[in-house]
Amino acid sequence: MAASENELLGAIYGRAAGALPAEVVVGPGDDMAVVRVGGRAVLIGVDQVIEGVHFALDRESIDRVAYKAVARSVSDVAAMAGEPTAAVVSTMLPRGAGYGDELAAAVHRHGLAMGCPVVGGDIAMVDGPLQLSVTVIGALTGGRAMLRSGARVGDAVCVTGVLGGSLGSGWHAAFEPRVAAGRALLEALGDGLTAMMDLSDGLAMDLGRLVEASGVGGAAVDAERLPCRAGCGWEAAVGDGEDYELLFTVADGVEVPGEVGGVAVTRIGEVTAEGGAVVRLGGGVVLSLKGRGWEHGR
Amino acid sequence: MAASENELLGAIYGRAAGALPAEVVVGPGDDMAVVRVGGRAVLIGVDQVIEGVHFALDRESIDRVAYKAVARSVSDVAAMAGEPTAAVVSTMLPRGAGYGDELAAAVHRHGLAMGCPVVGGDIAMVDGPLQLSVTVIGALTGGRAMLRSGARVGDAVCVTGVLGGSLGSGWHAAFEPRVAAGRALLEALGDGLTAMMDLSDGLAMDLGRLVEASGVGGAAVDAERLPCRAGCGWEAAVGDGEDYELLFTVADGVEVPGEVGGVAVTRIGEVTAEGGAVVRLGGGVVLSLKGRGWEHGR
Repeated sequence: MAASENELLGAIYGRAAGALPAEVVVGPGDDMAVVRVGGRAVLIGVDQVIEGVHFALDRESIDRVAYKAVARSVSDVAAMAGEPTAAVVSTMLPRGAGYGDELAAAVHRHGLAMGCPVVGGDIAMVDGPLQLSVTVIGALTGGRAMLRSGARVGDAVCVTGVLGGSLGSGWHAAFEPRVAAGRALLEALGDGLTAMMDLSDGLAMDLGRLVEASGVGGAAVDAERLPCRAGCGWEAAVGDGEDYELLFTVADGVEVPGEVGGVAVTRIGEVTAEGGAVVRLGGGVVLSLKGRGWEHGR
Repeated sequence: MAASENELLGAIYGRAAGALPAEVVVGPGDDMAVVRVGGRAVLIGVDQVIEGVHFALDRESIDRVAYKAVARSVSDVAAMAGEPTAAVVSTMLPRGAGYGDELAAAVHRHGLAMGCPVVGGDIAMVDGPLQLSVTVIGALTGGRAMLRSGARVGDAVCVTGVLGGSLGSGWHAAFEPRVAAGRALLEALGDGLTAMMDLSDGLAMDLGRLVEASGVGGAAVDAERLPCRAGCGWEAAVGDGEDYELLFTVADGVEVPGEVGGVAVTRIGEVTAEGGAVVRLGGGVVLSLKGRGWEHGR
């Protein structure tokens, strides 16, 4: 079988392509799928958080676990420049856990606060880790879904916020999904916004995915331009995961705004014709970003 | 905390009521929720299957596990008289499991065959049981969603197919979701179809839920009318779970069809003004169905 999560996902995505009915506008492989229900485009995507992989109960509170579970899925809506409508949540609760009620209350509270009410769920008690699987559906308010596949050579590569150090700083369980920023970018840039995704597995890995999905030769970012979280260097900014910021590309010649939806925007590099995803360290030193990515729980 | 799955679900549903935005047409508590996305009604619901709770890998093949995971969620669409559009699936794969690729292929194949293509997913490898969480979205083709809350005193209580013995017969992992039957019932009966749900936890428990959701006093079914699977008696027909047949009510005076969508329909009793959910054994003997239900994995 496939050896890693990424290979396995690749196998599934590869298989699904080509066999999907016409209602499926965007199939597996992007942050969310787009399907037509009664003629109307609906965003749908699922993400799970698992004890021991995405959080540890001796470090995070139940409230933060619930927050992170919902926010991760809502972040995918932001990446599509969409607006969340509702969520459903399935929960595996370790048998004997005393926090089931607190967890359910927190999931509902955070969903409502993020504009994404939890409208259904399924709970089972098991001998296993705590797990929450959160599916979010949403609407396209800007007329189109932003995919990771639209980048072109020469486009500017940009990010919102700061990168790196998410786990140590607590950001991974407290981040604000960039829904407003995603929509504002599409509104402000229109066709000038060419590709977008959210940063969940680190810039190195996610930029590589954007390059691959777009069928371009590469992307180069400058270490000195990377907006690093306080205390982080460029290695953390490209290698750490769980930034939950937006990574996007802007057509050559279109002005990149300095901030959007109250969040700073930084131009960190550009899409290239070849070379893969790389970071330029200055003095002509260029390092491949391949293999610098991060997998949850590893 | 709440002691059982049902109590916990009750706590969540109770909490959610009243706080939901206007886009939520039907909130938690029915087989699926109904939300408006871009003005259009969308059905959404989630169900999970877990190794050791809903299946055992020494008894069921990976193909059957995948089938059951998808079919359970599609069965909820049938219960709403809707039509499935697409699914997303999150999977917890036990570390070292050799069947990941086979499982993913089977999930996709069965989704497509049920008219419910899998358009997204999330996979994590963990030290824990195999789990699949399947969210399905769907459309309302008959103009309204069938809820479990519309039964009125005097309505006929009916079921599709046969009941009982699902686990022993293998039906639990091979059943056909009653999508065609659900839609055909709404089309044939119109407003005469007053309530509907699917039977997942056994007639005793699920009829009690329909009674409670509808705010009626009770429902009485006749043991001798129950369509029992070969080898099953009335106790199995009311107490066994995982029938995945439709339980529905038909307004007094409206003719109940003998079959629908190729599936037999049986009138098994009627909605009553009081007494709770009961089974009549003949000779004036009436037994409460309360406590005869079935919980997965217990």
